[in-house]
Amino acid sequence: MTDLSIREAQAGDLEAIIRLHEEDELGSHGDVWSDETRPVYEAAFRAIQKSPDNRLFVAVDGSEVVGTFQLTFIPNLTARGTTRVKVESVKVKAARRSGGIGAQMIAFAADHARTQGAAAMELTSNKTRKDAHRFYERLGFARSHEGFKKRL
Amino acid sequence: MTDLSIREAQAGDLEAIIRLHEEDELGSHGDVWSDETRPVYEAAFRAIQKSPDNRLFVAVDGSEVVGTFQLTFIPNLTARGTTRVKVESVKVKAARRSGGIGAQMIAFAADHARTQGAAAMELTSNKTRKDAHRFYERLGFARSHEGFKKRL
Repeated sequence: MTDLSIREAQAGDLEAIIRLHEEDELGSHGDVWSDETRPVYEAAFRAIQKSPDNRLFVAVDGSEVVGTFQLTFIPNLTARGTTRVKVESVKVKAARRSGGIGAQMIAFAADHARTQGAAAMELTSNKTRKDAHRFYERLGFARSHEGFKKRL
Repeated sequence: MTDLSIREAQAGDLEAIIRLHEEDELGSHGDVWSDETRPVYEAAFRAIQKSPDNRLFVAVDGSEVVGTFQLTFIPNLTARGTTRVKVESVKVKAARRSGGIGAQMIAFAADHARTQGAAAMELTSNKTRKDAHRFYERLGFARSHEGFKKRL
């Protein structure tokens, strides 16, 4: 892990990022990289790059993308105008899990959010991901909220 | 309720919006409108207005602000590049609760999100807000996720 670095994702990382999504154990999102799906991912990547409030990161070991996460900065009135940061789409390469990569990514996310003036970090995790819940609690997150979703 | 309309918030609505935050039963966010706090709310309001991904709304009955909510559009790779919308800081005036204002706001939010191309809506609610959880489940939201928070 000595070579691990975390940096903003570039267009050339997109396939490797989606390959991490493919490994998701729930698989409920149907993510797969193919000639057919590539255009929608490229469009979404451009939308993330264009947004001043969103940043997509990769964790790289040597030249290999081994993790990814997205940060969304949310300006908000609540708590006296506290900017909060939502952590989204946290993925670590299956073969490299339980090796500290996730913890390094979340620590990086917290540092980055803090330097940008955010005072709180939040995320949601599917209720079936028990390992992830223990992971976030170990990192000092409080499991204080219920997360609701609805398809439109 | 025949006069209820929902529109984007304007600077002149800010005090009324924060008064709704003051009525929050948890009160854990310390929100209060005063000469001292006004500048931080004004700065946060400007940050929301400036963000292309955020919109703050009010529900107005005649000339009275009776509700508010914020929408955050999040471009994302997950689920084949689905844009999702986070609903944030949903508040209804205490004296007007259980009168359908919240349901009208959420229906408006869903319509607005859909017309902007979003495919999913999400929100988190403190685990102590049991009434709110029943409300969101009645409106078709699935309580599928755990919500984690950490102060920075």
